[in-house]
Amino acid sequence: MRRWCAGVEYHGGAYSGWQAQNHHVSVQATLETALSRIANHPVRLVAAGRTDAGVHALQQVVHFDSDAARLPDAWVLGSNTQLPADISLPWVKPVDGTFNARYSALSRRYRYLIHNHRSRSALSGGRATWWTYPLDATCMHRAAQVLVGTHDFSAFRASVCQSRTPVRNLLAIEVFRRGDFVVIDVIANAFLHHMVRNITGSLLMVGQGRHPETWIAELLAGRDRTRAGMTAPADGLYFVGPRYPDGYGLPPPPEPWFPAG
Amino acid sequence: MRRWCAGVEYHGGAYSGWQAQNHHVSVQATLETALSRIANHPVRLVAAGRTDAGVHALQQVVHFDSDAARLPDAWVLGSNTQLPADISLPWVKPVDGTFNARYSALSRRYRYLIHNHRSRSALSGGRATWWTYPLDATCMHRAAQVLVGTHDFSAFRASVCQSRTPVRNLLAIEVFRRGDFVVIDVIANAFLHHMVRNITGSLLMVGQGRHPETWIAELLAGRDRTRAGMTAPADGLYFVGPRYPDGYGLPPPPEPWFPAG
Repeated sequence: MRRWCAGVEYHGGAYSGWQAQNHHVSVQATLETALSRIANHPVRLVAAGRTDAGVHALQQVVHFDSDAARLPDAWVLGSNTQLPADISLPWVKPVDGTFNARYSALSRRYRYLIHNHRSRSALSGGRATWWTYPLDATCMHRAAQVLVGTHDFSAFRASVCQSRTPVRNLLAIEVFRRGDFVVIDVIANAFLHHMVRNITGSLLMVGQGRHPETWIAELLAGRDRTRAGMTAPADGLYFVGPRYPDGYGLPPPPEPWFPAG
Repeated sequence: MRRWCAGVEYHGGAYSGWQAQNHHVSVQATLETALSRIANHPVRLVAAGRTDAGVHALQQVVHFDSDAARLPDAWVLGSNTQLPADISLPWVKPVDGTFNARYSALSRRYRYLIHNHRSRSALSGGRATWWTYPLDATCMHRAAQVLVGTHDFSAFRASVCQSRTPVRNLLAIEVFRRGDFVVIDVIANAFLHHMVRNITGSLLMVGQGRHPETWIAELLAGRDRTRAGMTAPADGLYFVGPRYPDGYGLPPPPEPWFPAG
């Protein structure tokens, strides 16, 4: 039995999220079906991040086990012909049996993309969240810096979150503007359910001046989800990718110059 | 009668091109229908660039005449609710009667976007042209510089082109790489039919080493369309926008950081 690791890119708009669920079309089930055809046996995937319904991925990473004799190229070329247009598999690499796409990940990076303009954008629809009120990205960036470090993130945790602990280590958060877009980049060891979207919802309130910069620190200290901002929509969220120990020789998360690719 | 000028953004994938044609769905006819509802009378549009089937626009510019008493915001908000998701109208401004979206334009800018990777990209599908052979963008850039200036561009002109003259003034062309993407930016006073896509088709041949850098100069001098490369696909082409004399006070073409918006 050999263990394989693969990068996966997708537009989440048509899916119920990463995880396979009955009666819903998930990215996981769609990809397992494609890889099973290439393997000629059922393939089960373990992923670095279980993205929600509508969330996109620049480089999700998965692992699977197979005793099928296939070259990396056979997995890549074969599965890309079996997959729908909104899911692609840019690379597959053999890894040793100690590798686990979920548990070996050192950190994960997400990008939240906001189209900040009075009217909607044809080209950004379904790929960025449209926010009409002018946002002060510099102020959002300053407010966000209190989140860096190891904290109890209960204030930004979905009520349905199944994690045993609300403590996460947030390594970096940057908010910046490029033209009509405001970008929020976040890196953490791991994320709670809805954590990026809940942080974004509160930063939006600060960015449009409805709360002072200090509000984010108050929310974090209060650990009360009901006092924080809304859960920002899924359309603008991209899982940029996980990072692994160098020894596995896997590609790093792509530099998301092009938020949509 | 008042003259209005408007910016238009669209994803061209579902349209037969800018220009209204019988039995085809065009961007022009779709936008005229929306604006006519707001105006309460038939609206006819004149555009800066008549983009082909499948070509996108970051900032197409149009003008129209109307005696309907409407504020700029009424045109913007009203038409955006009437338009499909793949067309949007970011701004409308009153202009004096001397303005003509087509004839007042000093220059036009296009961007051609290539996803240069062995396998296809889920997020770039329909928004960049997929090219599997490795491309040398530096070599493409050098080869392209002979096109700058006033030349007879017959070698890169579609056989059906209706222009009276094949002479155009190409102001700048830049080819560069960002990660897996190769970008071709071109500015000219105006373009012949298929000119950007035909130049791109030949630059792709140089970039993958099938012709030397000097081939572009030979093609230009030969004025023979049949010797040049293929017409590159429409998916990767964006009309970034026209530029007008400053006196009209119109927004410049957007800086296309985000090729898709």
